[in-house]
Amino acid sequence: MITKEKIAADFKQIQAHICSALESADGKGTFISDSWERKEGGGGCTNILSDGNVIAKGGVAFSAVHGPTPEKILQKLQLEKADFFATGVSIVIHPESPMVPIIHMNIRYFEMSNGEYWFGGGIDLTPHYIDPEDAAYFHRELKTLCDKFNPSYYTTFKEWADNYFYIPHRQETRGIGGIFFDRLKADEDMPFDKLFNFVKEVGYLFPRIYATFMKKNAALPYGEQEEAWQAIRRGRYVEFNLVWDAGTKFGLDTNGRTESILMSMPPQAKWTYNHEVTDGSMEAFTQNHLKKGINWLTFTP
Amino acid sequence: MITKEKIAADFKQIQAHICSALESADGKGTFISDSWERKEGGGGCTNILSDGNVIAKGGVAFSAVHGPTPEKILQKLQLEKADFFATGVSIVIHPESPMVPIIHMNIRYFEMSNGEYWFGGGIDLTPHYIDPEDAAYFHRELKTLCDKFNPSYYTTFKEWADNYFYIPHRQETRGIGGIFFDRLKADEDMPFDKLFNFVKEVGYLFPRIYATFMKKNAALPYGEQEEAWQAIRRGRYVEFNLVWDAGTKFGLDTNGRTESILMSMPPQAKWTYNHEVTDGSMEAFTQNHLKKGINWLTFTP
Repeated sequence: MITKEKIAADFKQIQAHICSALESADGKGTFISDSWERKEGGGGCTNILSDGNVIAKGGVAFSAVHGPTPEKILQKLQLEKADFFATGVSIVIHPESPMVPIIHMNIRYFEMSNGEYWFGGGIDLTPHYIDPEDAAYFHRELKTLCDKFNPSYYTTFKEWADNYFYIPHRQETRGIGGIFFDRLKADEDMPFDKLFNFVKEVGYLFPRIYATFMKKNAALPYGEQEEAWQAIRRGRYVEFNLVWDAGTKFGLDTNGRTESILMSMPPQAKWTYNHEVTDGSMEAFTQNHLKKGINWLTFTP
Repeated sequence: MITKEKIAADFKQIQAHICSALESADGKGTFISDSWERKEGGGGCTNILSDGNVIAKGGVAFSAVHGPTPEKILQKLQLEKADFFATGVSIVIHPESPMVPIIHMNIRYFEMSNGEYWFGGGIDLTPHYIDPEDAAYFHRELKTLCDKFNPSYYTTFKEWADNYFYIPHRQETRGIGGIFFDRLKADEDMPFDKLFNFVKEVGYLFPRIYATFMKKNAALPYGEQEEAWQAIRRGRYVEFNLVWDAGTKFGLDTNGRTESILMSMPPQAKWTYNHEVTDGSMEAFTQNHLKKGINWLTFTP
């Protein structure tokens, strides 16, 4: 029997592993730990790394909270009054260099006193400049992990990510997607312990993937043009998170811990009226490929 | 009989007057005009000034649109199917100097083929640094205008602004408020023409107020500390507009013109995890006075 305490403990361990792996890949920055308590029950620990060699602003947050299920969750999920327990690890990393992608990872477990429970999570990548080889590598890693557990996972969760990480008012995706899943429950093919292992492996895959990009891309040269484009892409990241991201909206709406929720904000962002990319530029290539449904495993430009 | 065409024409004239007044106060920047059409009917003209002497990024937008009322508006207002007409002027000015406040003004008229109509609008001020004398001047100007039309307007609309321009997840107001009103209809005491004049006078008051701040405050000295604080306050402006502003959310949700809606974004913003102000500093003074219910007319620090 895997208890909720065991799940929280394993998640906490994943947080520690990730922070240590990222510090080692960064070579300069160290995480500062900010613990907090939730009045109604539980708490968390938000780890922040600022001004590293590669990471400009990164957050790796763990939380395990419990208490009476907030009214808004009950309404949204059409559930009767019950207590809840929720634990998760959330990550957003904004790199210093525009040549290194922004990344987001989340794994979470939710359980209610009435027996309801589910897992959710995902990883998605937001390159300032889309590199098809990087995109193929990223999606291949995700597919390999998914395939170990269920042959339908990658296709389903990749499409889910395309639809979730989408900015309707820009008619563009946030980046090149990845995998996203929610309300996953155990079944015959996927017993609870195997499902839990899948979710944990998503957590452990994250630092391997991101350390690869940190090492490979941080050395690439860039100048003012790339920095200007990065600032605009960061603005779009802000727009997605504040306008469309269900998790952010929900957190801010239900009196969540603001600083932990908004650790996803970039260190800096810019907005220029009606910014347009130059035909044939690298920026145009990226802009033109912020679309749903691209198979990055087989994509050739 | 004041027709909707007359209202739109007068609003368009207010836009032109404001742009000319702001250019004259800025002394360097000029507005670039971007006209657009709405597929379903009507269109607008968004005027943008960038990199002026005083104005870093300012938008003065006019629009007059019509067609079948979007389903989401009908739902929200619980109305039967009908055609609509809407016209308005919207302004957000982000100054270069942290010593000059950010300002927002909006006047709007909405009319439906079933006879329904209303006016809305307001002006609110977001100083990076609250100066009680500036705040008193600003609110006195608004009160003087309101009192000319209705003795209850200022008190009612000031409270409305306090409640509207509020950031729940930060438990702070966006700035020092101002006036906000919506769904105003004519009645015995306030015939249609008088109501229309009130709304127009709000439009004409705006450049007088802001030119005063531009002239007075742009000369004040500032350094890196003030610029850093400005970047954080701009971040809060982004948070309010993208997370809570009903107009922005509604526009993005109903397929409005994104660039015109998001002209309210600052040229640049920064986010620092858990930023805290120093006790006794000017920043702390501002932070501590971002509260509802302050009577800025009589306030003494």
